[in-house]
Amino acid sequence: MQTFTLDPRLAADTLPVARMPSSELRLMNDRRWPWLILVPAQGGLEELFDLPAAAQAALNDDTMRVAQVLKRITGAQKINVGALGNIVRQLHVHVVARSEGDAGWPGPVWGHGKAEPYDARDLQAMTARLRGAMGAAS
Amino acid sequence: MQTFTLDPRLAADTLPVARMPSSELRLMNDRRWPWLILVPAQGGLEELFDLPAAAQAALNDDTMRVAQVLKRITGAQKINVGALGNIVRQLHVHVVARSEGDAGWPGPVWGHGKAEPYDARDLQAMTARLRGAMGAAS
Repeated sequence: MQTFTLDPRLAADTLPVARMPSSELRLMNDRRWPWLILVPAQGGLEELFDLPAAAQAALNDDTMRVAQVLKRITGAQKINVGALGNIVRQLHVHVVARSEGDAGWPGPVWGHGKAEPYDARDLQAMTARLRGAMGAAS
Repeated sequence: MQTFTLDPRLAADTLPVARMPSSELRLMNDRRWPWLILVPAQGGLEELFDLPAAAQAALNDDTMRVAQVLKRITGAQKINVGALGNIVRQLHVHVVARSEGDAGWPGPVWGHGKAEPYDARDLQAMTARLRGAMGAAS
């Protein structure tokens, strides 16, 4: 198995939130939507089915936990979960909170317009809120 | 638990391929991409985490199986897996075979342009190929 290194584009676009059993949880620095990604710690993987069965199940569990927490703290109408990887090949799973009237609704977030970074205070507040909620959910 | 009825839009856009342990496997009638959806048999569900844990694990297993088969028979560069539900709320999981140069590459398929239905012969060939491959994989 290859050593884990975070893809440079993921590193540039996201900020660390928490270490989960299966993966690293990171926040997309785009205030248009509450948008998290889970990046499995194993290197050299591109497809979900590249993961060994136990790691796949653990990633699924963590993804569901993140999805539930994100829905609860945002009150979003719908959670979008996706593993695409057409641009960044390193395996990562998106969990995005969506609501009617948000940017691009009801279309997908991927490839929609340009990211709008959080300002420093909002970023800190969002990260703290997520950490608190994830801790409370465990 | 509510009785299962397939959402009218899913019924109009897709064709049945196979019954899987967790769900019904259906082909999106859009020849721009090999595009399958899994629809869990339980009614009244919108989010993946609405499924009981065992059903969730079974859906994940079936999704991975479909993703592997689709990658193998298409030779696609990347499989996109997603559960969005912003438009059709009935829980369903997309599995789409993507390759450089396909319609909308590297953007997502959802909301991209207009579906291009298969002609009858291609539809039959695609369905037969998928059924054969799914059978061979079980």
